[in-house]
Amino acid sequence: MVIQPIVDIPVICAAHGIRQAVICPGSRSALITIAFARHPEIATLVIPDERSAGFIALGLAQSSKRTVAVICTSGTAAANLYPAVIEAFYQEVPLLIITADRPPELIGQQDGQTIRQHNLFANHIRGFYQFPASFGTKQEIAHATRLVNEAILNASGTVKGPAHLNVPVREPFYPAPDEKLSFSHALKIIEVTHPSAGFSTEYLDVLIREFASHERIMIFVGQQAFDVALMQALEKIREQTHCVVVGEIFSNIHASGEFITNHDVVLTAQKTSSELRPDLLITCGGSIISKNLKYFLRENPPSAHWHIGENPEVVDTYQTLTQKMLMNPAVFFESIADHLKPDNKAKSDYQQRWQMRSDAARKQVDEYLAECQQGEFAAISRIMKKLPHASTLHLANSMPVRYAGYVGLKENVAVWANRGTSGIDGCTSTAVGHALNTPNLHVLITGDMAFFYDRNGLWHQYLPPNLRIVVLNNHGGGIFRLIDGPGKLPELNIYFETQQTLKAENSARDFGMAYYFVNDLSQLDEHLLKFFDPDNGASILEIETNPSDNEAIFTQFKQRIKQLWKN
Amino acid sequence: MVIQPIVDIPVICAAHGIRQAVICPGSRSALITIAFARHPEIATLVIPDERSAGFIALGLAQSSKRTVAVICTSGTAAANLYPAVIEAFYQEVPLLIITADRPPELIGQQDGQTIRQHNLFANHIRGFYQFPASFGTKQEIAHATRLVNEAILNASGTVKGPAHLNVPVREPFYPAPDEKLSFSHALKIIEVTHPSAGFSTEYLDVLIREFASHERIMIFVGQQAFDVALMQALEKIREQTHCVVVGEIFSNIHASGEFITNHDVVLTAQKTSSELRPDLLITCGGSIISKNLKYFLRENPPSAHWHIGENPEVVDTYQTLTQKMLMNPAVFFESIADHLKPDNKAKSDYQQRWQMRSDAARKQVDEYLAECQQGEFAAISRIMKKLPHASTLHLANSMPVRYAGYVGLKENVAVWANRGTSGIDGCTSTAVGHALNTPNLHVLITGDMAFFYDRNGLWHQYLPPNLRIVVLNNHGGGIFRLIDGPGKLPELNIYFETQQTLKAENSARDFGMAYYFVNDLSQLDEHLLKFFDPDNGASILEIETNPSDNEAIFTQFKQRIKQLWKN
Repeated sequence: MVIQPIVDIPVICAAHGIRQAVICPGSRSALITIAFARHPEIATLVIPDERSAGFIALGLAQSSKRTVAVICTSGTAAANLYPAVIEAFYQEVPLLIITADRPPELIGQQDGQTIRQHNLFANHIRGFYQFPASFGTKQEIAHATRLVNEAILNASGTVKGPAHLNVPVREPFYPAPDEKLSFSHALKIIEVTHPSAGFSTEYLDVLIREFASHERIMIFVGQQAFDVALMQALEKIREQTHCVVVGEIFSNIHASGEFITNHDVVLTAQKTSSELRPDLLITCGGSIISKNLKYFLRENPPSAHWHIGENPEVVDTYQTLTQKMLMNPAVFFESIADHLKPDNKAKSDYQQRWQMRSDAARKQVDEYLAECQQGEFAAISRIMKKLPHASTLHLANSMPVRYAGYVGLKENVAVWANRGTSGIDGCTSTAVGHALNTPNLHVLITGDMAFFYDRNGLWHQYLPPNLRIVVLNNHGGGIFRLIDGPGKLPELNIYFETQQTLKAENSARDFGMAYYFVNDLSQLDEHLLKFFDPDNGASILEIETNPSDNEAIFTQFKQRIKQLWKN
Repeated sequence: MVIQPIVDIPVICAAHGIRQAVICPGSRSALITIAFARHPEIATLVIPDERSAGFIALGLAQSSKRTVAVICTSGTAAANLYPAVIEAFYQEVPLLIITADRPPELIGQQDGQTIRQHNLFANHIRGFYQFPASFGTKQEIAHATRLVNEAILNASGTVKGPAHLNVPVREPFYPAPDEKLSFSHALKIIEVTHPSAGFSTEYLDVLIREFASHERIMIFVGQQAFDVALMQALEKIREQTHCVVVGEIFSNIHASGEFITNHDVVLTAQKTSSELRPDLLITCGGSIISKNLKYFLRENPPSAHWHIGENPEVVDTYQTLTQKMLMNPAVFFESIADHLKPDNKAKSDYQQRWQMRSDAARKQVDEYLAECQQGEFAAISRIMKKLPHASTLHLANSMPVRYAGYVGLKENVAVWANRGTSGIDGCTSTAVGHALNTPNLHVLITGDMAFFYDRNGLWHQYLPPNLRIVVLNNHGGGIFRLIDGPGKLPELNIYFETQQTLKAENSARDFGMAYYFVNDLSQLDEHLLKFFDPDNGASILEIETNPSDNEAIFTQFKQRIKQLWKN
């Protein structure tokens, strides 16, 4: 027996603009699967490991800027989606998680694959929606339709994120072989209008006066996708004022050569300097990685800190927040840019102070890396310099994203990293999701721990030919040698670094990928030519390095930049 | 700065009998890790993939019958433990999950690896315990000590399961290289006495009269570890009465040749027969797999159904429950066995009816499998017949555990399977945990989907030499061809079977395991000799079969047994 409200779920999804669904195989979820598979407007991917499936969906949603549906069966299948759900929650990426469930009468009755799915992702979900278990009345059918609408609207609302639709299903699960599913027409589609917030003329005047009253203004952009409107507004503000615009490598502001993206190096050299302290800090975007910036701002607090963003939660990373403006950052900065006072620029040399230090730091880092003939830091630096035009760079946690931040990018390359919760658990899968959605080259730089952790991100029928994976294999969690603390402990090797012997070669063989191996950087450039060839197909470039070398190189690097202003 | 109450966590664990801890590497959890690593009474294993780590801990706890600690860092690390936590919850296996966390002031502040860990496993945990974040007062220190006691007592209480201790940690995370940790003495250890429940003489009289008043008594044992006291009591009852004792292959009652373990075959042949209907059903143990038994009992309900077990939740799998007895099953059945009336046996031929059908079914299955020259069903049958004496058999979901149930075991082989929630997500890891704890041979029979899903269960430094993995590789989720429903749908191959091309050979290479490959069963016996050699080391035997063959063989098998009583 086919349950029409279940068959109609993809109809409502499609009406709301959902175009992709990631499906994890299962029996309880069969009707949902078949309905999505047969819906003409929704493309489907079948991914066996739910953990990877969740992250692939995350990548698809990030690259398409659309909500992506994820379908799985009952039981721990749903629990395996949890890491991706959490990452989507903190990165505010819209996912519609559809889990099949036992009907209420079978929960807790020792039926197979039965857990308590009600509000399973309780702490990290924008909303939980329990689909009805029977449809004997019109009210139940209408309820089902409304819930699907509601879940999608919640996932894709002003503050985006994952929403969970839990669908109880009774046997039989499968339609008859010759049974035709028909999708309902004229289903109720609820739309939500999001009027964009703007300032009254009076308030804008106040704001501009307040802005102009500060001599040291820092605009810090946290993690975000490249946003052309925001970039233009920020460029205009920087040009016409003395403010500095600062952001991480994954804040995607590096396309402008005028913004500061090496603040972490600058502040390593000059941790407690108050010369760089802002009076007014304006922040937008998601997470930041620079501990130096965090500590610097906590120790040198601005007198005012405005955060611009639509999520009403109070995130006060530097313990300096004074004002939240619940609006789109691009709209906010455009308003500021359009109303700047012409004489603003002359008052302060704050911008020059930052720029001078940034330039000096950049030069020092470039020189140091140019000298480096071995190790993963030099490898990342060379790879980033050779990234093809308009490629997309994916940076895995934990060291690649840090190294890349030091190296910096000037190119037209978009950067992504799972910095919602900074886990290593889905870096490969997320990159796969991205690569599936755009034809340009997607380069993932990852470590051996992150690569093998998420190897199942490659285990399916959709390996994207435009995917390039660089595995920096130091046979363990190299970060534990590079951070302060564990380096000299007797537990380092076994308990922190977790020495592991695998190489990626067998994985390349498993997944039919081209494979290149380098343990001497003099061979790197030659391999990169082939590796980055667009016709090469999905490929792995494994760079094996020695952890002690990496440690020595990074230690020397930190010493060098600490000395930066002392010379 | 070393936080003494954190250092003392393993002291309290050891006092409560915890002897093993599984550690997943991380910085936030560093002090917990180091304290466990340095504690003389607790052995540690370091496992990089938290999902596998959780299941390895499950296997360790099952085989040692002790609570096992699992330690991980903050963020999605903890979420990756969720599948194993759920399995442990439903199988009632004691785990102490210790997660490091940010201190409260940093939650939701865009710090890395920070999620909402408070009650993270809400629906599937025996208890959540929030460790204090500061220790300025004696009360806070005493609170910390009590919470650790409480978490362990809850995990290892009458109803066992996972408990979650969440430990906020402020920087710095690492002790100085030369800093000595000292464990406190005379910490408060709270003990709980569990007096065993017993019957009053009066009530026992009532019970025995009630028992003797039924002519058809079925004792059904759900999933459980081998229990010699229970077996002896059940054997005595079976001998002296007309009752039948029935159980699944993972109920571990097959060592007695007199109990019925092929009820699913018997009831395939005779689904609706009321001849086999019990008047009194007595159940104990965990989950069951036989759908035929479930439907049979629902359609032919006994007039009374007693469930014996210490978990007060009302699990009424057959919708027949009339009485719960909150006591240990072995104690219950011993009481019954000791007070049986001597003339009980003569009244009914219920036992003979079951036995006759069971014998006929067994003969039929044996004959059918002896004829079979190919396919995974025949492979499992041959492997099970050759299992070394006193080996342990691990059956992965979803087909291996079903096939093995049809084949049956008479040997002195213990059987384990993750039937708490019946996921494929941790079958390999769980077997690894078991094999690490006992020197006998541990044979895992798994399918390709379960094997590759949980490949990271082998990714660590502790590969047990007594582990033997049989991978039945039909290049997809073979179960979808074998169950009713999807077989004829156009979506079968892509959406349900999920055809996949991997073989286990590269995995064997990755993990340095001996590898045998068979795609023709005539080679099987020869390989089994080497494969089961105790000196062979950790090995994989991959048996490649054709899904259509498997389907034809299983379809014919079901037809054959459906005809069983018609000839």
